Amino acid sequence: MVGVGVMGADHAARLAHRVAGAALVAVSDPDMGRAAAVASAFAGVRVVASPLALIADSGVDAVLLASPGSAHEEQVLACLSFGKPVLCEKPLTLSAASSLRLVAAERALGRRLVQVGFMRRFDPSYTRLQSSLSSIGRLLVLHNVHRNVSAPASFRSEMIVRDSLVHEVDVARWLFADEIASVSVLAGLSSRSAPSGVRDPLVAVFRMAGGGIVTTEVFINSQTGYEVRCEAVGERGSLFVDAPRPLPADFLSRFASAYDLEVQAWVSSCVEGRAAGPGVWDGYAATTASEAGVRSLQNGGEPVAVETPS
Amino acid sequence: MVGVGVMGADHAARLAHRVAGAALVAVSDPDMGRAAAVASAFAGVRVVASPLALIADSGVDAVLLASPGSAHEEQVLACLSFGKPVLCEKPLTLSAASSLRLVAAERALGRRLVQVGFMRRFDPSYTRLQSSLSSIGRLLVLHNVHRNVSAPASFRSEMIVRDSLVHEVDVARWLFADEIASVSVLAGLSSRSAPSGVRDPLVAVFRMAGGGIVTTEVFINSQTGYEVRCEAVGERGSLFVDAPRPLPADFLSRFASAYDLEVQAWVSSCVEGRAAGPGVWDGYAATTASEAGVRSLQNGGEPVAVETPS
Amino acid sequence: MVGVGVMGADHAARLAHRVAGAALVAVSDPDMGRAAAVASAFAGVRVVASPLALIADSGVDAVLLASPGSAHEEQVLACLSFGKPVLCEKPLTLSAASSLRLVAAERALGRRLVQVGFMRRFDPSYTRLQSSLSSIGRLLVLHNVHRNVSAPASFRSEMIVRDSLVHEVDVARWLFADEIASVSVLAGLSSRSAPSGVRDPLVAVFRMAGGGIVTTEVFINSQTGYEVRCEAVGERGSLFVDAPRPLPADFLSRFASAYDLEVQAWVSSCVEGRAAGPGVWDGYAATTASEAGVRSLQNGGEPVAVETPS
Amino acid sequence: MVGVGVMGADHAARLAHRVAGAALVAVSDPDMGRAAAVASAFAGVRVVASPLALIADSGVDAVLLASPGSAHEEQVLACLSFGKPVLCEKPLTLSAASSLRLVAAERALGRRLVQVGFMRRFDPSYTRLQSSLSSIGRLLVLHNVHRNVSAPASFRSEMIVRDSLVHEVDVARWLFADEIASVSVLAGLSSRSAPSGVRDPLVAVFRMAGGGIVTTEVFINSQTGYEVRCEAVGERGSLFVDAPRPLPADFLSRFASAYDLEVQAWVSSCVEGRAAGPGVWDGYAATTASEAGVRSLQNGGEPVAVETPS
Repeated sequence: MVGVGVMGADHAARLAHRVAGAALVAVSDPDMGRAAAVASAFAGVRVVASPLALIADSGVDAVLLASPGSAHEEQVLACLSFGKPVLCEKPLTLSAASSLRLVAAERALGRRLVQVGFMRRFDPSYTRLQSSLSSIGRLLVLHNVHRNVSAPASFRSEMIVRDSLVHEVDVARWLFADEIASVSVLAGLSSRSAPSGVRDPLVAVFRMAGGGIVTTEVFINSQTGYEVRCEAVGERGSLFVDAPRPLPADFLSRFASAYDLEVQAWVSSCVEGRAAGPGVWDGYAATTASEAGVRSLQNGGEPVAVETPS
Repeated sequence: MVGVGVMGADHAARLAHRVAGAALVAVSDPDMGRAAAVASAFAGVRVVASPLALIADSGVDAVLLASPGSAHEEQVLACLSFGKPVLCEKPLTLSAASSLRLVAAERALGRRLVQVGFMRRFDPSYTRLQSSLSSIGRLLVLHNVHRNVSAPASFRSEMIVRDSLVHEVDVARWLFADEIASVSVLAGLSSRSAPSGVRDPLVAVFRMAGGGIVTTEVFINSQTGYEVRCEAVGERGSLFVDAPRPLPADFLSRFASAYDLEVQAWVSSCVEGRAAGPGVWDGYAATTASEAGVRSLQNGGEPVAVETPS
Repeated sequence: MVGVGVMGADHAARLAHRVAGAALVAVSDPDMGRAAAVASAFAGVRVVASPLALIADSGVDAVLLASPGSAHEEQVLACLSFGKPVLCEKPLTLSAASSLRLVAAERALGRRLVQVGFMRRFDPSYTRLQSSLSSIGRLLVLHNVHRNVSAPASFRSEMIVRDSLVHEVDVARWLFADEIASVSVLAGLSSRSAPSGVRDPLVAVFRMAGGGIVTTEVFINSQTGYEVRCEAVGERGSLFVDAPRPLPADFLSRFASAYDLEVQAWVSSCVEGRAAGPGVWDGYAATTASEAGVRSLQNGGEPVAVETPS
Repeated sequence: MVGVGVMGADHAARLAHRVAGAALVAVSDPDMGRAAAVASAFAGVRVVASPLALIADSGVDAVLLASPGSAHEEQVLACLSFGKPVLCEKPLTLSAASSLRLVAAERALGRRLVQVGFMRRFDPSYTRLQSSLSSIGRLLVLHNVHRNVSAPASFRSEMIVRDSLVHEVDVARWLFADEIASVSVLAGLSSRSAPSGVRDPLVAVFRMAGGGIVTTEVFINSQTGYEVRCEAVGERGSLFVDAPRPLPADFLSRFASAYDLEVQAWVSSCVEGRAAGPGVWDGYAATTASEAGVRSLQNGGEPVAVETPS
């Protein structure tokens, strides 16, 4: 494991206690104290000072990256160079150019090694919706709501797009089985509970290449609970992912099963030598859409085309 | 009563049987057979050949207009010239210029005589939401869904904006207590249940003058039921108008109570010589927003500013 | 109108302002000041000192009784003796023997003059469920929840059965189109918000003559809101009456439309000289079931058979 | 693993693929072909002809029993005699006397070795409700709905109590942290979709020792979907476990996460040498309540006291 912040610590416990076929053997984190604390919580876990040393370590068969997005490109490239499977938390990287380099590197290798951490694709309520789509005819419109109780002051408007909205970017691509053609991100009235200067809530509109339309409200200082909902509207009806009530406190609680299933699927795929789940192309496509979203937000909400290379 | 189509016939029964303080005395309709049929269903109701003759009739104290929108300007002006209160079904008229003439005419008269038929302002579920708004802090975002089972082939895309979406236009103005600054109407994939050439569903985005954002899906050939929902998102929570289950078949069933309360409020206001409910200005403002919506739809969904005169 | 307490005052405004075909001409109440206050709120309403004088009054065509249940027998009999239609608030009377005398008196008269105030039969959500029953096959089980925010200390356990649960008694008879064969009323833990000695909540189980089963929770000091819900379970699915959210404060707000439609139906039936809605037999059957419920409550919840005369 | 029917095969995949700390090494089933098929689906799994030989096998550290309830007593006793932890599917056994022998045997051993498969205690929606109970004050009433699409003809009325209702028995004991004092099981109208002679749906009422009341509808041929719901009513509000929509097809789908978490908790507890989850006492208490339920059903729904030994 590289990175043992909130998400990484949660994954460490998962790897150690709730996943078949894996053993947590080493962790690395810039905060050595934090790394030591996590390591000591489990039996037989070493602390490795440098992420690249951990990736190169011969005792490490596969790598889970829960480091910041800014560190992902270098670390994923290292995994690829050692031929080690990697589960990389979202976002894949912070720029389309960077993500595209990872697509190219994996393609050069000739086999899939990268899974990107879009856990909603493993959430039972989302997979139930996805597998029921045929019952409502062709999918036409998708509505999403994505609310957090509150966010730290360091969580700026652009991060709402890159770190929060990116989940709906992936959900839209997955449910429509289509690419996003353009993105608008509108900022209107901001809640007085949001830190000064942060535009929150945001309303995003995606237009899919094939014509589908996606609306999303992202509201990270909603004061109420962690509330993620989705309605898929087809030609013959609509399907819902509802939020559990009472609302869970945060994403770790709401998506605990999804993370378990995601990491299990990854570990199983490593053991069996095949790839599973969303890959480096999905991560890249999400990054290009996020980039378009950030530009739209900066331009007052104008639709920005998403450049999709062939 | 002028106009005894589906809506008018429903109102006739309401006036005759379910409203205090009113007597239905005369009806007019271009289809004289239809007018005679409605008149004969109730005691003491005359058929008057021309709408203007009905409005001028000394036995008529107040007029309910359920005629097509294209006839409204002339008929409302006639009511104003005779100083008679009028309840005019939505839309007020089909163009902003025309609606503005009605605003000017009523203003010249110096007193309110026109109520516009935005019945949702009287619906118990909407009024409950509206009166609870203070519990969620400042209103930030509004999400609407507006679905019909199916529509006749004559119901073209522009009419979805003018006749269906206009309800959400009024709801947005009412709940935000604010004017709409711009409107986008996006057409994406159309359902194969929609008549050829009709863009359905549509997704509209309104930006309010004060910054609020409104999203609306209108889908008039949804194949499922009459499904109108609303979520008002504030700084401290959100409130819902949910659709009853099983879904009602149509608006007359879903909004039966709203129509009763609307017409009762109008009749009571006539008796007491005061105005009630949404007025000619609300009708005009809705027409300007609808016009902007039609232009946006024609321009591929670009936001169109709503011109609001002082 | 006889009786102008909370319910009566609400009905007075309804008769005066929201119902076609009626004029409120006289009110009577033991509290003369309250009667005078209600009368003065409307034009042309006289205060009559005695209920029986009001019923006998030649200017009174029909009578709405919103007096206490203990006064109903004498007042309904007076209405019958004058051949005047009467809408009697529930419960019809406080004993089966007394209610049976009213059944006999109306039968002796040879025509229906009594409507009993079970307003849920007019509520749009209940009528929608009732008219959809055929879609779920034969009705097998009914679940009800009936909660009030709080009740005055004078509202004893027996009154929870006679005044609150009696609504579910009527709903069960109406939806099953069947009589109730036996009633159990269980008292378990009582909320510490209930007045001392009051058993609240109660759980009732009805067995219908034809085999259907009905469960009802009545909780009149629930502290949350006025929450009435119903689920009808059939051979091929179930249907719901859900509570609106946010929860309404009380029954006058929740059932405003139902009361409007109920009183309108009564007035229209008076004008047209026919009977409508639940009648004296329904009132009697509800009283017998309530009596059985009170006995069950006193006997620790044992099922008590409901005696149904032929 | 002993028993590889539907439930056992599901658990086998779980042990092999989704649980940390366990290896599936041997299976046993009276149907040797079925056992061989399951064994061959995973690497390194032996088929052992007799359950008792499997339990005694020195390569087996812990045993998961998914055999029929009638086989549980002998098999659990064998596990206890070898000092091996056992996860026994519900019901623990088919008679209170038999379950009590297991309680005594484990007690004689001096340490907990038995976990009983009440997986709802691990379901995220149930655990969220349970951990939120303090927010609604003292728990007063519990309402449950438990529906299956259909059941095989071999599933008789008594089995609805022993195999289906037993889940609500355990949920009631868990949420109230109290024993059940008496049970009524009412059979009313049976669905014509139920096999001949099977009383379905059933309505059960439990009275808890401390006064709480529990209502449960069990309907195993509901034709609609697998629908499990729960409402916990407290002094200051109520909490829900809702059914996901669209309804899942069966319990394996609805409770997949619960089973994963249950088996993981069991495996972790085996590794760490401590006990977890519902134990042999819970299994025994559930059996006594089920027995009372079966007797009540046979006696026309009369309440039957649950004998709780000290």
